[in-house]
Amino acid sequence: MNNKDIGSRIQIKPSTFLNPVPVVMVTCGDMEHANIITLAWVGTVNSEPPMISISVRKERFSHDIIRSSGVFGVNLVSEDIVKQCDYCGVRSGRDTDKFAETHLTKFKGEKVNVPLIAESPVCIECKVADISELGSHDMFIGSVENVSVSDKLFDQKGAIDLSRAGLVAYNHGEYYVLGDRVGFFGFSVAGRDALNRRMKK
Amino acid sequence: MNNKDIGSRIQIKPSTFLNPVPVVMVTCGDMEHANIITLAWVGTVNSEPPMISISVRKERFSHDIIRSSGVFGVNLVSEDIVKQCDYCGVRSGRDTDKFAETHLTKFKGEKVNVPLIAESPVCIECKVADISELGSHDMFIGSVENVSVSDKLFDQKGAIDLSRAGLVAYNHGEYYVLGDRVGFFGFSVAGRDALNRRMKK
Repeated sequence: MNNKDIGSRIQIKPSTFLNPVPVVMVTCGDMEHANIITLAWVGTVNSEPPMISISVRKERFSHDIIRSSGVFGVNLVSEDIVKQCDYCGVRSGRDTDKFAETHLTKFKGEKVNVPLIAESPVCIECKVADISELGSHDMFIGSVENVSVSDKLFDQKGAIDLSRAGLVAYNHGEYYVLGDRVGFFGFSVAGRDALNRRMKK
Repeated sequence: MNNKDIGSRIQIKPSTFLNPVPVVMVTCGDMEHANIITLAWVGTVNSEPPMISISVRKERFSHDIIRSSGVFGVNLVSEDIVKQCDYCGVRSGRDTDKFAETHLTKFKGEKVNVPLIAESPVCIECKVADISELGSHDMFIGSVENVSVSDKLFDQKGAIDLSRAGLVAYNHGEYYVLGDRVGFFGFSVAGRDALNRRMKK
């Protein structure tokens, strides 16, 4: 662990500069009147019990739907649905039936009465536990009630291999697939055997 | 936008399955007694004013430092410091001077009295605006007071080219660099000129 040339720094104005961030399609409403909103201001906020935060501008069509229904779905985005994901971020559900326009397939959550996206590799069903008004956005804290995973992500041993999902990250206004794996949690203190076993696959 | 074969779904227990997520080195304390904690439960939660959430387990050494000082730094992680990042996630500041052990370089924030990491491509200075007890973790909402960017990220026109940073994402327990760029915000409805201009670079 040696220093590199650290150069000098430029001060810029306070802004939302955390990168990369997730990008997900959040679903809301019911099976008859379903909407999709693409969000990047999302994050895991608690482990036990599992909770996710999503931040939505008050004026967005989905805002009041989620607020009144108290439920939402978080659908992860793989490369093969990134175009639909982008489309759901630039069009409003006030004018558009996004499921119809994108040809994405609706299905109902197992534990939460919310539409989900069948083409998404991982769908997370949430109930709203809290709402905070932060300014431009309201932050909804969702408790995770159920998770379903595409059967294509399971390896021969029955373990989930998320690298098969081709998930997309959002970085400074652009969508990227993940590239090289450069480590695993604990690799900096792992022994040679663990490094050989886990970094080779 | 056509359907693909959607296969079938496997239900798994409620868990923290949002992926990929950011991974950052959060700094706290002062220039004499500084600590670094690696966190992935972080996210942007508001745009105007800019706010970030970080979730920290109550028993972590940094938890009380951030709570009592009311400030923290969010240091983005590039591939060349991912090993130090991992190390700061598996060792505790109770036992270790992480700046000394990782040879990372401390510098003081411009607007917030908090140590930051000079090797980080982007450092975000935050003041704690709110704390919520969620269960295993406390969620700290930080208002962004300043951002500094390495001068190496600026292109010839003086614009920030974040692709130069080699930022790392965290995906299901593993660190990945970003791979191919597969779109930009609005690409699904962009005209041919914009697509040619922006997807070529």
